[in-house]
Amino acid sequence: MIKIAIDAMGGDFGAKPIIEGTLKALEHQSFQAILIGDKAQIHSQIPLHFKHRERIEIIHCNDFIKMDETAANAIRRKESSIFIATDLVKENRADALVSAGHSGATMSLATLKIGRIDGVSRPAIGAILPRTDGKELLLLDAGANVDCSPEHLYAFGVMGYEYVQNVFRRKKPSIGLLSIGEEECKGNEVSKEAYALLQNHHGFVGNIEGDNLFDGHIDVVVCDGFVGNVVLKTSEGIAEAIVKLLKTYIAESVTSKMGALLMRKSFKKLKKNLDYAEYGGAPLLGINGNVIIGHGKSNPKAIQNAIKQAISSCEHHVNIKIAEAFKKGVH
Amino acid sequence: MIKIAIDAMGGDFGAKPIIEGTLKALEHQSFQAILIGDKAQIHSQIPLHFKHRERIEIIHCNDFIKMDETAANAIRRKESSIFIATDLVKENRADALVSAGHSGATMSLATLKIGRIDGVSRPAIGAILPRTDGKELLLLDAGANVDCSPEHLYAFGVMGYEYVQNVFRRKKPSIGLLSIGEEECKGNEVSKEAYALLQNHHGFVGNIEGDNLFDGHIDVVVCDGFVGNVVLKTSEGIAEAIVKLLKTYIAESVTSKMGALLMRKSFKKLKKNLDYAEYGGAPLLGINGNVIIGHGKSNPKAIQNAIKQAISSCEHHVNIKIAEAFKKGVH
Repeated sequence: MIKIAIDAMGGDFGAKPIIEGTLKALEHQSFQAILIGDKAQIHSQIPLHFKHRERIEIIHCNDFIKMDETAANAIRRKESSIFIATDLVKENRADALVSAGHSGATMSLATLKIGRIDGVSRPAIGAILPRTDGKELLLLDAGANVDCSPEHLYAFGVMGYEYVQNVFRRKKPSIGLLSIGEEECKGNEVSKEAYALLQNHHGFVGNIEGDNLFDGHIDVVVCDGFVGNVVLKTSEGIAEAIVKLLKTYIAESVTSKMGALLMRKSFKKLKKNLDYAEYGGAPLLGINGNVIIGHGKSNPKAIQNAIKQAISSCEHHVNIKIAEAFKKGVH
Repeated sequence: MIKIAIDAMGGDFGAKPIIEGTLKALEHQSFQAILIGDKAQIHSQIPLHFKHRERIEIIHCNDFIKMDETAANAIRRKESSIFIATDLVKENRADALVSAGHSGATMSLATLKIGRIDGVSRPAIGAILPRTDGKELLLLDAGANVDCSPEHLYAFGVMGYEYVQNVFRRKKPSIGLLSIGEEECKGNEVSKEAYALLQNHHGFVGNIEGDNLFDGHIDVVVCDGFVGNVVLKTSEGIAEAIVKLLKTYIAESVTSKMGALLMRKSFKKLKKNLDYAEYGGAPLLGINGNVIIGHGKSNPKAIQNAIKQAISSCEHHVNIKIAEAFKKGVH
């Protein structure tokens, strides 16, 4: 049975949502949960007669990396939940790691301890975003590497392709390079060189612009971590702004209020579609192990979906596929 | 009376929306319009008894820079509408220029012929975006300079501050540097150095992230042209995706359809708020003259508002204020 190490400490809201999400996942999927955190706290969150108790293992620890600490601290904090969790994956005592804690710490520890796949110089965070056709796209890097070379961007394309092909089960994923025009000559210095490299990949379809990002024809979006993070947060900001404006306008008239009431179901569907929790976490690609980085604010549903993603990564051997892709060298 | 040179040729839909917008502007504002384009075509669009005919001058030409041409062509095409229009500003025969044509061509010609303000090495395009408080923010650069140095970003901050203070009439505009975290240490190499430079400007309030971009506390957002353009287009893409999803959900149920009908007014307001045409065009800052770059797809309303912006730039002497700011050197 697949074993998932779950950091029960680092999230913004403590152990509660993480345990709750884990219990839900245990009800729906077949895996062994290794919870790392304060034993008493974890125990208090598990109902006495929880059906799948035998599939829970708890490893006690007290320490965790706080959100305002620097990632550099992590390597010295051997008693922290994330340190112990990465050790489990390193020593093959767990098949995957899920953490909603300090993402920088998770990334450094995973890279240093579990190690990089041969040929990968920079592991990348893949963000899963909704498309208008109801499917998802993978954007990477979402913030792990702020300054990238063309070679890094090329490697992101290779990793994203393997992830989408194996986890999303798409036959021939399309890779787009995020840029400011569709033509090859459009972009900045790094993106233009990356374009030339990516042309060697059979999944590459050229530059993609932000206004076509979500229309359904791109499976993998490649960009540096600065741009990727800005895109993610701006998307969030725009969606929030639209909701806020609409709420203001609705409040201005009784007719609109009634209309909004009748539209409740549609709004709910929209909310669900835009809800990050539906997509779980972000896979850390390029590591010799399966690591899913959750949002610090993860609710139980997000944790449940992150665990689902981790299981899926294990089952489909994403890392092995990525390693094979780099070994072959030709795409 | 302020004289505005209007490129009647370069837009995606030909002269029609441009003339229509100009006529509307003439009805509401006091200025002299110099239309550059095919005389016969322009004449055919002006109603015989148009009240403000005496405030229209037409300069005939046949040629214009097509959207798929390179900007480099522009400098040799002396008979093109945009070449003639920039000449008018250069020779002080017009106070400002409005063009919805090839933006690269407009930029190069404006820079080469009208010239840069002392101290500005890179003119920047300022995009005007809606905030949730009903006011606007200025984001620059929106795509003129894809690779920027920290000094360029600093200069964008200075120019944006003067524009917002003088045209939007805000007493002490706040400048935010677009980044991936609020802390000074967050960002890429260029943005971190730009942070240090921008600290010398009294309007600088630190890094701003995409999710807080529209919440109303930032007046000027500074970023390089690659990031700026990606942000603009992604914002467009997200807004479109949300509308598309909502339409799909509404179509699925009669109740929702009725609700949407009742909410029509609210949706209309939202549409108006998100409509680029409401904001006119984008000022090209750092030039020794007033240049407004319109969207290629500008409709009459967008042209009307772009002309309004051009008049406002003239009236408030934005260029002189920018030149003074650079001359003083201290902010």
